[in-house]
Amino acid sequence: MADRSLTVGVLGGTGPQGRGLGLRLASAGYRVVVGSRVPQRAADTVARLRDRYDVDVDAMSGGPNREAADSDVVIVAVPFDGVQPLIESIADRLRRKIVVSCVNRLGFDEHGPHPIPVDERSATELIAGLAPGARVVGAFHHVPAGRLADDAGAVDMDVLVTGDDADACDVVCGLADAIPGMRGVRVGPLRLSRPIEELTAVVLSVNKRYGTTAGVRLTGLPDDV
Amino acid sequence: MADRSLTVGVLGGTGPQGRGLGLRLASAGYRVVVGSRVPQRAADTVARLRDRYDVDVDAMSGGPNREAADSDVVIVAVPFDGVQPLIESIADRLRRKIVVSCVNRLGFDEHGPHPIPVDERSATELIAGLAPGARVVGAFHHVPAGRLADDAGAVDMDVLVTGDDADACDVVCGLADAIPGMRGVRVGPLRLSRPIEELTAVVLSVNKRYGTTAGVRLTGLPDDV
Repeated sequence: MADRSLTVGVLGGTGPQGRGLGLRLASAGYRVVVGSRVPQRAADTVARLRDRYDVDVDAMSGGPNREAADSDVVIVAVPFDGVQPLIESIADRLRRKIVVSCVNRLGFDEHGPHPIPVDERSATELIAGLAPGARVVGAFHHVPAGRLADDAGAVDMDVLVTGDDADACDVVCGLADAIPGMRGVRVGPLRLSRPIEELTAVVLSVNKRYGTTAGVRLTGLPDDV
Repeated sequence: MADRSLTVGVLGGTGPQGRGLGLRLASAGYRVVVGSRVPQRAADTVARLRDRYDVDVDAMSGGPNREAADSDVVIVAVPFDGVQPLIESIADRLRRKIVVSCVNRLGFDEHGPHPIPVDERSATELIAGLAPGARVVGAFHHVPAGRLADDAGAVDMDVLVTGDDADACDVVCGLADAIPGMRGVRVGPLRLSRPIEELTAVVLSVNKRYGTTAGVRLTGLPDDV
């Protein structure tokens, strides 16, 4: 069940993925703080989203990443190379927070997208190592950034949620469930994050090959998931 | 389009995954050779499947893995640890063949299933390295072995197909399309095999958590895929 009293901060909320997720969560009734290294950029992003979509004026605000990190749930939506410096700089603020990694480390060359290995196995586990005491969850890796942010089109996908903190996973499933067309599915512990992160390259490759925006679904689950 | 004139050999065809795939492909009209290290075991498996299911007597036979390897399409369905000795022993027979890896390297402990890294990145790429000249394709990793082999229940899943040989990938998509409830999806090159193999641990973890047999689907693809 979604708990709309939660505030959600999006680190790197001005990028396509963060912007799209922030917009959808604000539309779903959460109070969203869009964070950026450059606070003015966050404010501009929020102003544009408010102009373009019917988002309540109180539902979204913009500010520095530090401010976004003070939310109940903190979504990390920065590019992989920005993860370590950012998380190190705010690790003290993340203690006991639910920290959601939707980071994918991908490369692109003439053969298309491909996953780039992470020493810690996954970006999610990297973040868990950098933010002791945080309740780290992996989720939202396959959200189609363009579709979320740049049009109001429907999505049709499951959000595969990994984490070692069961309650934190349930909260994040609630965020996914609150967005029309998404369903949160609890997959298992953090160590299952890598295949989910790397699957993003598979989804992007399929998108390119079939000229579409594919979503991942799991079939055969009970109706009340 | 499925080409029913193809013969399909299943190396390790007496295990649950190979047995199930062989049964479904024979039921779909292919001529299937179930292979085993122990030829009598292959013959016994075929006899039991014929008894239990309505499989045409000409559609399935059992024999040594070497004989199965002489088929047009050769599915490798042995446990990971058996891959290297088997493929090395028959590499000469696999030249120019379509060789399909559905091998997953998984571990199981008190926290559930998890992927075990492969030095060559994926079992599919390991096989490609061991069988020069073979047209290696990754597919059928997530097929629910129990459901395929032990009851006649429907499946509802996509088969994610990787490979560097486009024609070979199309043939394997045709095999998947011939099985009711399955759809072959061409994902991209061999190097995208790892996330698909490792995703098997995710599917098994979901199965355990939700008490089900989950399938993977991609949404948003064109109808004529």
